[in-house]
Amino acid sequence: MLDVCLLGTAGMMPLPYRWLTSLMCRYNGSDLLIDCGEGTQIALAEKGWSPHSIDTMLFTHYHADHISGLPGMLLAMANGDRTAPLTICGPKGLARVVNSLRVIAPDLPFDIIYREINAPTEEFELGGYQITAFRVNHNVPCYGYSLFIPRLGKFDAEAAQAQNIPVKFWNALQHGESVTDEDGTEYTPDMVMGPARRGLKVTYTTDTRPTESIAVNAKGSDIFICEGMYCDRDKLKKAKTNKHMMFTEAASLAAKAEVSELWLTHFSPSLVGAEKHMKEVKKIFPNTILGKDGMTRELNFIDEE
Amino acid sequence: MLDVCLLGTAGMMPLPYRWLTSLMCRYNGSDLLIDCGEGTQIALAEKGWSPHSIDTMLFTHYHADHISGLPGMLLAMANGDRTAPLTICGPKGLARVVNSLRVIAPDLPFDIIYREINAPTEEFELGGYQITAFRVNHNVPCYGYSLFIPRLGKFDAEAAQAQNIPVKFWNALQHGESVTDEDGTEYTPDMVMGPARRGLKVTYTTDTRPTESIAVNAKGSDIFICEGMYCDRDKLKKAKTNKHMMFTEAASLAAKAEVSELWLTHFSPSLVGAEKHMKEVKKIFPNTILGKDGMTRELNFIDEE
Repeated sequence: MLDVCLLGTAGMMPLPYRWLTSLMCRYNGSDLLIDCGEGTQIALAEKGWSPHSIDTMLFTHYHADHISGLPGMLLAMANGDRTAPLTICGPKGLARVVNSLRVIAPDLPFDIIYREINAPTEEFELGGYQITAFRVNHNVPCYGYSLFIPRLGKFDAEAAQAQNIPVKFWNALQHGESVTDEDGTEYTPDMVMGPARRGLKVTYTTDTRPTESIAVNAKGSDIFICEGMYCDRDKLKKAKTNKHMMFTEAASLAAKAEVSELWLTHFSPSLVGAEKHMKEVKKIFPNTILGKDGMTRELNFIDEE
Repeated sequence: MLDVCLLGTAGMMPLPYRWLTSLMCRYNGSDLLIDCGEGTQIALAEKGWSPHSIDTMLFTHYHADHISGLPGMLLAMANGDRTAPLTICGPKGLARVVNSLRVIAPDLPFDIIYREINAPTEEFELGGYQITAFRVNHNVPCYGYSLFIPRLGKFDAEAAQAQNIPVKFWNALQHGESVTDEDGTEYTPDMVMGPARRGLKVTYTTDTRPTESIAVNAKGSDIFICEGMYCDRDKLKKAKTNKHMMFTEAASLAAKAEVSELWLTHFSPSLVGAEKHMKEVKKIFPNTILGKDGMTRELNFIDEE
């Protein structure tokens, strides 16, 4: 139902066989991309996916490793004859940065809608998701994103019958709409629907020190994708200076936010032998997964009886 | 002596396992790069080469597939602590385009020297090469480049002795310098040096229809790297419309320019099964080589006795 694909896992610079960190979410015919560094369009092609149906792009910030692939991606979308508008969200400076990069992609057959994010937390709906953008702590303005797909409560047919609600209205009520009968009787969804059920939630944050905003906004995520730039303990000072995270710090956030699973990504180019650190990391948060390029998970609503 | 590496062979968009077309030439500790599309820094890393020592970049034109990798490449050079200036050459608009792309790479520890090319043909020296930029025929201003490494004539020791030239001056004369003795006698290189010998020449042109300027400037090249966007005969109309070349047209240019060998590159993303067209192409120019990503040749002065 919701396909979540970590297209790349590199931080700072793309490497042979390690694409820059970005996330593609596919849901209900709408594709959403978070970050687009150099080579992201190739990572997408390797996956066998098309850039054509990307409706929404979210940018965490404007360091090159997170946006340098944008002109190429826009042109790839244009080559696919896209005409539907594309919505791009990102921190302050969005239109200026994107238009500057578009010096090499000036003519596109689709419009770009800019949604600049300025408040510490902003909530909005796009592409079928309830999106929360939350400010994190990097050396330039940077945001994390939570994507939430809500799930309505269960329809109670017995309650509908007991209240003599005509069957012709059941479908509308099930979809959250209120209806009024010819005689003026109003029926509302709460008359027949149980409490909202567990939806699907994915949280993505990279290029930041650990923050309270991450712990709060990642709360209860099915997948929490978080940067882990370094794993060797002696890199902690570097992590603090460059405003990045250690594996263990990401794991502590995952534990605090009580997520179902943590995917580590945005690895330093110097990082090798990450596996040997996973024992220590899993002590903090057992369900930690070392991100791999192209790693994909399909999330579905949990059957609740 | 001169290493010539075709880093990629793709035109229009990078593909999995086909990097965008660009050329790296390494000579005498100086590296020169022609074009830098999305992923070129990864192609370079795959080769095991560093971006650190790139002194000169030449751009044919500013379509994204030829320059989209520039910000990432500049940052990779910066990460390697480069401080020596970088010279960038390209058609009209050079500084505007590069500065616009640098919105995501604003702070570099080295200066950029711009050398904009405007005349139909311009000649200049850079990085040990005699470079000729020549205008070609694309749908935006576009240039091809010839790189020439000259070779002095042979030193004639007998002539030096016969003319009583002191031995202490021989080295200077061998290096093309004139010298004056204490008694005012002047010695010039032509007194002891034979005629200039065959140097090394590499010509690169892409994104163009065949032109007389290519045939003239590629004359006698050791390697002629030329675009071959299409090979199927039914693509000729498309080649003409989009200002690109067929394999056979590149081969005709190679024959006309009497080059030693032709490397085809800048293949259309739709191009598959190119090998089956090579028989026809080789009828026109036998020494045609279908470019492969990372293909490298070392050129050396030919021993002339």
